[in-house]
Amino acid sequence: MHRAASSESSIRALCQTIPGLDADAIDAARSRQDQLTKPPGSLGRLEDISVQLAGMTGVARPKVTRKAVFTLAGDHGVVAEGVSAFPQSVSVQMVANFLAGGAAVNVLARHVGAKNIVADIGLANEVPGDTSGLKSLRVADGTANMAAGPAMTPEQMWQAVQAGIDLANAEAEEGLDLAATGEMGIGNTTPATAILCAFSGADPVDVTGPGTGLKAEGISRKAEVIRRSLAVNEPDPDNPWDVLRKVGGFEIAGLVGVILGCAARRIPVVVDGFISTSAALIATRACPKCAGFLFAGHRSAEPGHDRMLALLGLDPILSLDMRLGEGTGAVLAFTIIDAAAKLLDEMATFADAGVDGEAE
Amino acid sequence: MHRAASSESSIRALCQTIPGLDADAIDAARSRQDQLTKPPGSLGRLEDISVQLAGMTGVARPKVTRKAVFTLAGDHGVVAEGVSAFPQSVSVQMVANFLAGGAAVNVLARHVGAKNIVADIGLANEVPGDTSGLKSLRVADGTANMAAGPAMTPEQMWQAVQAGIDLANAEAEEGLDLAATGEMGIGNTTPATAILCAFSGADPVDVTGPGTGLKAEGISRKAEVIRRSLAVNEPDPDNPWDVLRKVGGFEIAGLVGVILGCAARRIPVVVDGFISTSAALIATRACPKCAGFLFAGHRSAEPGHDRMLALLGLDPILSLDMRLGEGTGAVLAFTIIDAAAKLLDEMATFADAGVDGEAE
Repeated sequence: MHRAASSESSIRALCQTIPGLDADAIDAARSRQDQLTKPPGSLGRLEDISVQLAGMTGVARPKVTRKAVFTLAGDHGVVAEGVSAFPQSVSVQMVANFLAGGAAVNVLARHVGAKNIVADIGLANEVPGDTSGLKSLRVADGTANMAAGPAMTPEQMWQAVQAGIDLANAEAEEGLDLAATGEMGIGNTTPATAILCAFSGADPVDVTGPGTGLKAEGISRKAEVIRRSLAVNEPDPDNPWDVLRKVGGFEIAGLVGVILGCAARRIPVVVDGFISTSAALIATRACPKCAGFLFAGHRSAEPGHDRMLALLGLDPILSLDMRLGEGTGAVLAFTIIDAAAKLLDEMATFADAGVDGEAE
Repeated sequence: MHRAASSESSIRALCQTIPGLDADAIDAARSRQDQLTKPPGSLGRLEDISVQLAGMTGVARPKVTRKAVFTLAGDHGVVAEGVSAFPQSVSVQMVANFLAGGAAVNVLARHVGAKNIVADIGLANEVPGDTSGLKSLRVADGTANMAAGPAMTPEQMWQAVQAGIDLANAEAEEGLDLAATGEMGIGNTTPATAILCAFSGADPVDVTGPGTGLKAEGISRKAEVIRRSLAVNEPDPDNPWDVLRKVGGFEIAGLVGVILGCAARRIPVVVDGFISTSAALIATRACPKCAGFLFAGHRSAEPGHDRMLALLGLDPILSLDMRLGEGTGAVLAFTIIDAAAKLLDEMATFADAGVDGEAE
């Protein structure tokens, strides 16, 4: 706990080190795109993504070789209010499934050649089976019930954010080129929705969705729990750390750390769905420059996600009606971002290939 | 040419052999999806794609191992009317670029592990450089100018369609699991737009776009050329072969053959952008059952593409503002379809993984 006590100042200092985008690399990438053997602009978003990657990494022809998804798992005291279609036991069971390679995020990570980092940052129960592949970073046995008071103490929150930064730094040391955020935590659309409401002023009734599969009655109950959590805690929208601590979660705090840690090292981060995007809202409000290092992997089917993306000014790469989390949508977007980088790097120019330019 | 003379009857016979979807495989795939470790439906389109694949292939847990994109190249007499931003010389230069591996479709095919089949089905000029990798199926040195009369003779059209069927059959013999349509042909958005107008009754002014990069004046000229081509030829919208012959192109006819040949062998086909989709319009009107074997790879930025997709009832997998052709959008969609198949096949079930189900 002595590390957590010193984390606040080091995290605030890290935020000051996050760089801007590299204008020279952006210009070089855009100039090369215009010389490649295709009508200018005809690769659409793929051209833009390649140019963004150049600006983020500071490399004119960036490569996306080492990819990793950070799947952080935590539990939520607010499940006592009946906000999820699945029991809390599923959080640790799904973590065991991640470690065994049987979950959706594992299949997709194998498909795109990404490493999957699984961490217990605040689960309430023990993970069954072989946990040798699990990063044990547990801050507490789940958050407190935010419908009755703050989800975390300040010390817990800073410890969870620092744990995410440390995970990012460890992968950065191994040469990480592209990161994705992912999570598991039964009940975690409830804090994510509360974060959206805290920043946007939206009424919970208007943005609360089914999460893993609530029916109409359950959604109404969940919206009422979110309304009560906001009323009890009065999170300050001008202080993102206050919002995170009072109505967030350990995995959300850890993902804020992953985003800050990657941005400080110029590593692009692909944000997954609803819960991950709530972490991006916290991170970008705590440190606006980190917004430059984010891609939105996909548009979630969870109803509040569009509103979150609008607050961030992010246009998602994929739109496949996914709403699973774990990092699945972000990992699938890896392959599109990788393709964009390869097109910029590997295509022939008009001059190389002896192809005539536009006649008009 | 003796083969072409006998092609019409064999093509019409092939159309009769295209099967329906396999209902048992669809039921088995849907049932397995509901047992996998995720909230039901939470993988969205990926679940639907996996179930469609099962129905197409007749396999309950289909694999997408061998993938190929058919990039057919042809020239267009109508370029004499000034309908393209690039000179006709670019068609063969880009084919040389395909053979050297420097074009966008090559980069993307390598990225997703697909074979790229490049065929000259009606180019007007010789392909420079080493053409050992080129399939030489040239029907004629480009089509006739459709603004003055039919683009093809009946014999030419049937020969081009049969060449596409033969290409599909050759790959099917090697175990092809998933095909994509692609094309190259300076000026070919003009016949593709004419096909759309012939079937939909749309005014060319409303659906003609920039193609490779025409400005407003060029687009107006192109729309007028399309209007004239339709007036001169009077293609019969109730006879798709009449539409193809009068206002189509050799690469479009060849892609009709690829679609029919694949569908007859239960091989799913991913349709690329505007030109490829015009071939899908012909194929599905000539043989409605082949519609069951099509995916739309992406939504093109070419303005008439949405209208074509609506006529086909297809919802594109990707929407990245691409407008390049070659098969690029379809090949990029391969990786999403492959991911969908792997999720269905490789994810653990709730029972396998010991994960509790829904509480509500």
